[in-house]
Amino acid sequence: MNNKAIGVFDSGLGGLTAVKELMKVLPNENIVYFGDTGRVPYGDKSRQTILKYALQDIEFLKSLNVKMILAACGTVSSIIEESNVNIDIPFTGVVAPTAATAASATRNNKIGIIGTTATIKSGAYKRELLKINSELQIFEQDCPLFVPLVENGFIEKDNKATLIIAEKYLTGLRNKKVDTLILGCTHYPIISEIISRVIGSDVKLIDSGKEAAMFAANALSFSECLTERKTNGSCTFYVSDTVNSFSKSAGLFLQQNVSQKVKMIDIAKYSTNLEIINDCG
Amino acid sequence: MNNKAIGVFDSGLGGLTAVKELMKVLPNENIVYFGDTGRVPYGDKSRQTILKYALQDIEFLKSLNVKMILAACGTVSSIIEESNVNIDIPFTGVVAPTAATAASATRNNKIGIIGTTATIKSGAYKRELLKINSELQIFEQDCPLFVPLVENGFIEKDNKATLIIAEKYLTGLRNKKVDTLILGCTHYPIISEIISRVIGSDVKLIDSGKEAAMFAANALSFSECLTERKTNGSCTFYVSDTVNSFSKSAGLFLQQNVSQKVKMIDIAKYSTNLEIINDCG
Repeated sequence: MNNKAIGVFDSGLGGLTAVKELMKVLPNENIVYFGDTGRVPYGDKSRQTILKYALQDIEFLKSLNVKMILAACGTVSSIIEESNVNIDIPFTGVVAPTAATAASATRNNKIGIIGTTATIKSGAYKRELLKINSELQIFEQDCPLFVPLVENGFIEKDNKATLIIAEKYLTGLRNKKVDTLILGCTHYPIISEIISRVIGSDVKLIDSGKEAAMFAANALSFSECLTERKTNGSCTFYVSDTVNSFSKSAGLFLQQNVSQKVKMIDIAKYSTNLEIINDCG
Repeated sequence: MNNKAIGVFDSGLGGLTAVKELMKVLPNENIVYFGDTGRVPYGDKSRQTILKYALQDIEFLKSLNVKMILAACGTVSSIIEESNVNIDIPFTGVVAPTAATAASATRNNKIGIIGTTATIKSGAYKRELLKINSELQIFEQDCPLFVPLVENGFIEKDNKATLIIAEKYLTGLRNKKVDTLILGCTHYPIISEIISRVIGSDVKLIDSGKEAAMFAANALSFSECLTERKTNGSCTFYVSDTVNSFSKSAGLFLQQNVSQKVKMIDIAKYSTNLEIINDCG
C-alpha cells in the first residue's frame, strides 16, 4: 500500500504547481499526474459537465491503483465539495487546506477569493471559510481570462494586457481592503507578481496548489502511509490531448525533461456511475 | 431529400455567424446546429484531437439525417482540409470559400490571415490561396487569445485589453501592408471593429462564417437541393455542455429566444473509424 503512487489531476497544466511542491516535500514518493488537456479549460463549463469530467479523471487515477488522489484544480475541488459525492479512496481537493491557511493568515478578517467562474459560482471557498470563522468578511471575484492569459504566456510581470485585465478584476477587492487573497485556481501563482502589484504588496497571497500539496503530505504522514522507499520516486504524466505541447510546458515548469514520461489516454472511456444532476448553469 | 435540414457545427458559439447568414439568405431551410461547448475551444489543441472531435461532430449531424454539413469553424475546416478524410455527405468548410473571396478582393496581392494556433499551423488558407493565385504574398498570424476575449465579453470597440492584444498580434501584418485580411476564425467578426482600428480601416476584412454560408447556399441552389417549403424553416441547437449559458448567448446573438430549441447531447458517444494519425503537435 505505502509504495503506491499519489494521484494528482487538473484540467491542464495548473496542477503542476502542486506536483512541484509534492516533489519537494516528499521526494521519495511516486506521483502519477493526469492533465485533461483534450477538454481544458473546466472553469467556464457547467457544474454538471465539470462533475462528469472530474469523476472520469478520478476513475482513471483509480485504475492506476494510487493510494490517494489530490484534485489540484480549484474548479474541480469546488464542484466536488458542494456535490457531496462519495469517492471511495483517500481524497483531497484544494478548498479545505487553502481556506484553513487563509483563515489563519488574515489579521483584519477580510479575505478575498479569486478563481474561475465555476469556482466562484459554487461558493465552496466561502462556505469553508465561514465554517472555520463565521466572523470573516469574504469578497469573491471570478477571473475567467487569467487561465487563457497564463496558458498563452502573457505572464511577465509588466505585461500590459494582463495588468489591465487584473486591474479590472481586482480593483473591487482592493477597495474592500482585504489583507489576504486566496489564489483559488492553481494557474494563478504563475502570475502572482502581477496580482500582487495590482492588489497591493501588503496583501498575503495564498497558493491553493501548494497548500493542497502540504495537506496531502501531512495526511499521508499522519496516517502512516508514506512510502518506505529510500530513493527518489518517479513521476509519470498522462494527458488527453497529444503529448508534445504538454511535455514542453511541463518540462519548463518542473525544470526537467519529462518527454519520455508523458502518455496520451482516451479519458472519455472512463465511465462513472454519476446520476444526472439538475442543470444549474 | 430537399426538405432535410442543413447541419452546421462549431466548437462553440462562433459558428452562429454562419447560421445568422444562412437564416438571412435561405429563410425556408431547416437548420440543425451543434456547438461542442463541453470541449471548447479547439484552436489550441492538437491536430489529432481536433480531427477526432470534428469527425464525432460530423457523425452526430449525420445521425440527424441532414442533407449537407457546414463546418463553421476555421480550426476544424483547416484540419479537415489538410487531412484528406473522406466525408460521405455533401460537406463544406470555411477555407475554400473564404480564400476565393479574399483572392478576388485584394488589389495589391498582399493578404493577411489570422486564426487560431491550429488553423495557422495547418497552413490550409495559405495553400488554398496559392492554388488560386501563386503570385499572392501571404502573411499569417495566430491570435490565440481572441476566442477567450470574445467568449468573455471583452468586445466593445474601445476595450483596452483587447486593443493591446490586437496591437501585439496585428502590428506585423500592418507593417507588411496587406490590403485584405481573412478573419479565419468564426469568432473574430464579433471584434471586427477593434481589428479594423488596429490593422487600418482601409484593409478589407473577410468574414469566414459569412463566406461559408453564402457558398453553402449557392451549392444547394446549384445542385437543386433547396427546400420546397414556402414557409420559414426552423432551427434546432445541440450542445455538449448544459444548455443555459449557450441559450443565453445564442439568443442575444441571433436576436431571438432559442431556449426551447437547445438540447444537450453526449458527443463522446459518437465514434469514428478514424485511424490514429501521427502526432504532429
